[in-house]
Amino acid sequence: MTVSYPLAELVAQLGGRVLGKANVRVTQISTLEHAQANQISFLTNSKYRAQLASTKAGAVILGEADADATELPRIISDNPYAYFAKVSALLNPLPQVFAGVHPSAIVSDSAKIDKTACIEATAVISAGATIGAHSVIGAGCYVGDNVVIGNHVRLYPRVVVYHDCVIGNNLIAHSGVVIGGDGFGIAMDAGRWIKIPQIGRVVIGNDVEIGANTTIDRGALDDTVIEDGVKLDNQIQIAHNVRIGAHTAIAGCVGIAGSTTIGKYCLIGGSAGILGHLQITDRVEISAFSLIGKSIREAGSYTAIFPFSKTEEWRANAVHLRHLDELVKRVKTLENTIGKDA
Amino acid sequence: MTVSYPLAELVAQLGGRVLGKANVRVTQISTLEHAQANQISFLTNSKYRAQLASTKAGAVILGEADADATELPRIISDNPYAYFAKVSALLNPLPQVFAGVHPSAIVSDSAKIDKTACIEATAVISAGATIGAHSVIGAGCYVGDNVVIGNHVRLYPRVVVYHDCVIGNNLIAHSGVVIGGDGFGIAMDAGRWIKIPQIGRVVIGNDVEIGANTTIDRGALDDTVIEDGVKLDNQIQIAHNVRIGAHTAIAGCVGIAGSTTIGKYCLIGGSAGILGHLQITDRVEISAFSLIGKSIREAGSYTAIFPFSKTEEWRANAVHLRHLDELVKRVKTLENTIGKDA
Amino acid sequence: MTVSYPLAELVAQLGGRVLGKANVRVTQISTLEHAQANQISFLTNSKYRAQLASTKAGAVILGEADADATELPRIISDNPYAYFAKVSALLNPLPQVFAGVHPSAIVSDSAKIDKTACIEATAVISAGATIGAHSVIGAGCYVGDNVVIGNHVRLYPRVVVYHDCVIGNNLIAHSGVVIGGDGFGIAMDAGRWIKIPQIGRVVIGNDVEIGANTTIDRGALDDTVIEDGVKLDNQIQIAHNVRIGAHTAIAGCVGIAGSTTIGKYCLIGGSAGILGHLQITDRVEISAFSLIGKSIREAGSYTAIFPFSKTEEWRANAVHLRHLDELVKRVKTLENTIGKDA
Repeated sequence: MTVSYPLAELVAQLGGRVLGKANVRVTQISTLEHAQANQISFLTNSKYRAQLASTKAGAVILGEADADATELPRIISDNPYAYFAKVSALLNPLPQVFAGVHPSAIVSDSAKIDKTACIEATAVISAGATIGAHSVIGAGCYVGDNVVIGNHVRLYPRVVVYHDCVIGNNLIAHSGVVIGGDGFGIAMDAGRWIKIPQIGRVVIGNDVEIGANTTIDRGALDDTVIEDGVKLDNQIQIAHNVRIGAHTAIAGCVGIAGSTTIGKYCLIGGSAGILGHLQITDRVEISAFSLIGKSIREAGSYTAIFPFSKTEEWRANAVHLRHLDELVKRVKTLENTIGKDA
Repeated sequence: MTVSYPLAELVAQLGGRVLGKANVRVTQISTLEHAQANQISFLTNSKYRAQLASTKAGAVILGEADADATELPRIISDNPYAYFAKVSALLNPLPQVFAGVHPSAIVSDSAKIDKTACIEATAVISAGATIGAHSVIGAGCYVGDNVVIGNHVRLYPRVVVYHDCVIGNNLIAHSGVVIGGDGFGIAMDAGRWIKIPQIGRVVIGNDVEIGANTTIDRGALDDTVIEDGVKLDNQIQIAHNVRIGAHTAIAGCVGIAGSTTIGKYCLIGGSAGILGHLQITDRVEISAFSLIGKSIREAGSYTAIFPFSKTEEWRANAVHLRHLDELVKRVKTLENTIGKDA
Repeated sequence: MTVSYPLAELVAQLGGRVLGKANVRVTQISTLEHAQANQISFLTNSKYRAQLASTKAGAVILGEADADATELPRIISDNPYAYFAKVSALLNPLPQVFAGVHPSAIVSDSAKIDKTACIEATAVISAGATIGAHSVIGAGCYVGDNVVIGNHVRLYPRVVVYHDCVIGNNLIAHSGVVIGGDGFGIAMDAGRWIKIPQIGRVVIGNDVEIGANTTIDRGALDDTVIEDGVKLDNQIQIAHNVRIGAHTAIAGCVGIAGSTTIGKYCLIGGSAGILGHLQITDRVEISAFSLIGKSIREAGSYTAIFPFSKTEEWRANAVHLRHLDELVKRVKTLENTIGKDA
């Protein structure tokens, strides 16, 4: 199933322009370091220009600023990184999916499965669920009662979607994802926790991707909402009644507590956290490992990282954090003393 | 399957007292903001009293202090949050479960399945396992050899319980939970790690809830123990030989290292961590994102959070943490100099 | 299936020497505190010597330094902790595995299953996959197209291995592990994220163990690589194109960002993080909860932990971190003033 494209056809489909031989054919995309003669590579940052001299790639994708940095056959694009993604998608089409329900799948009589959809082995589709056109429900997935899944959705093996959740078109959910488990709602009553029924849903827009083992809890009363174009990495925890704005991207292991709203086009670094009931405005960047404990009203970059050092140095420095208030008072006293003296 | 209750019947079942029309019927619970005329809402904090004026709810649940804050039909309770939970449970009964073993489930001949239990599609029940009365083993769950599961337990789809673990009554375990995987026990021997067999079990008391994708490892020699009434959110990691005291609640993404004992009625915030071989006494609160590195002998609240700020401000401030010991010495020198001068 | 060994046979198989009665038989290993007369215990740290006096163990494993610390029958070893692990493995053999494919498993005609392998109930083995000798594919596992799995591999129930990944011999992967999900590769193009196809694989060496719900993403272009003897605890996230050096051990909940290379014999504490595109040399120790944001060229121990304290003390101290740069400037001013005065 190897496919190949001449550069001329790539630009015909994807835009940009060719410099050098436009009939060079490429069969795969690769790094400058590892590319072979039948492969195309790319340069997304001029500071790696030196690698152009030594690459064995048959062609490269470059930005305008680097257009003349090599004599290799090349495609010039305004956004070489996105161009690379598009070329890779052409050269690496998804495996063909065969419509139909595997004999080992367990599908409720009242489920509505589009005839172009694929239900893989041992998947379970519950009563009243709807699976849209060209969607693939992977092996061992579980789709609960009355779930609605749109078109061109791909659930990889062992994804669980609890009852009543709604998923738009083009979702990609990787293995181990759990959508719609109960939010963590408990009330203390006479020395015991009482469970608060979680009667909201999870509602996911179009063009969302969710990484392996990420969990998104259903709402307590209202819904948990993931807007269009949101991209979630692996092992993320989204609590009940969170809303994530369109086109926000979140790296692995992030935890977002209940009822927090995150704006559009935010970027959240790995293992960061956001406490509950906060508002994060659009276009906020949160660094990896940073806990956000208050609402953020202004776009920009926010950080809370303890700088690492050799352990013995850390020990010498960190001990003073438990006495920082005292240190500040000592400095104040010195200032007062000097001030009085002066 | 809509149910409805008049206020009079709610107080007959749940206590409290009605002010206003006791024959008003409610069919669902909702927030003050979104409630409709056939719904009941609640106010758990007097500072949101203003919302009472604009709510369209047909009735509300209030604390004594707010009993006269509206003329809506209302139930007065000492603990309106817990009351709300109980009303919601009445209005949202769990779907009825049909006893029996789905034909696609794989059940060992030597497993003992109560005749009121439900084994859903594609679940696997291994040799010698016991499933108690009214328990539901969800689709695709795996129950290992000789596992004992009590009554009224609910395993959502794709839960795994390894061999020999013991689970009490009323456990709710959400999808992706893994109970009884091997603890992380390795010994270095001549440049290679040797595995230490993990021969303990996981023993879980009554009335426990475990969130999606949480993992609880089996003990190395003795057992890992989760006491009655413990509530665990999603994506938590409980290492081998940990003991969690009764009615402790732990938020998402927390990691607890091996052989640590946590007391009763503790509250542990999201993404917090507790190192191994520690003792945490009863009624300790640990803030989100805080690492506890020593035993805590005194009830109270503990925190270790680096405050976030704009990244440029963080950069200016955080750089000094690597020189904090030097700063303290400089202040000491100043104090000595001033002291000598004075 | 109880097995028992006299001490004489243990040293014949495992080395070391016996002091006291060599014909004492032991059936299980236990802690000094809980051991019974037919059990063997061990002391790995001389500071717990006092427990030797009260133990009811029938025999103990000791280091040379403690050889005379008891009169109990005992085995003396250079490395009593590793010795304990080996004795435990003898006393706790894995349950026997029966070769063959369970009738409910779904195995592609083009898969190559060694005749000594065991494919458990409801497992799915895809086209072109290879399963080596004596390997066990647990209930509900999914093995993708063309995956190669070596000999003596144990996948516990509900492990997923995506297409084309390569796994060496003796892997142990616990439930919920996902190997080969797509890396988090996205490119912004005109206000929308484009997916970057992840066409690399995950390649895992020999003698690796992976804890429950850990995820290892496939490479974007080249492979993600886990070298021989690596030990990974639960809930770890390994991003695309990471390389982990041989015999490195990583505790639970760690996140490692894309394209980072970690050396051999590193030890990484729980919930630590390592940013992307970094180089960590051999024999680096990273403390729990520490974020590593730059490459580490020198072996040793590194830490970035905010020390915990009572919340009111934390509040008083932490507030100054947002003004640390100002504090340093105030000290500088004082130094200048004093210097001028002096």
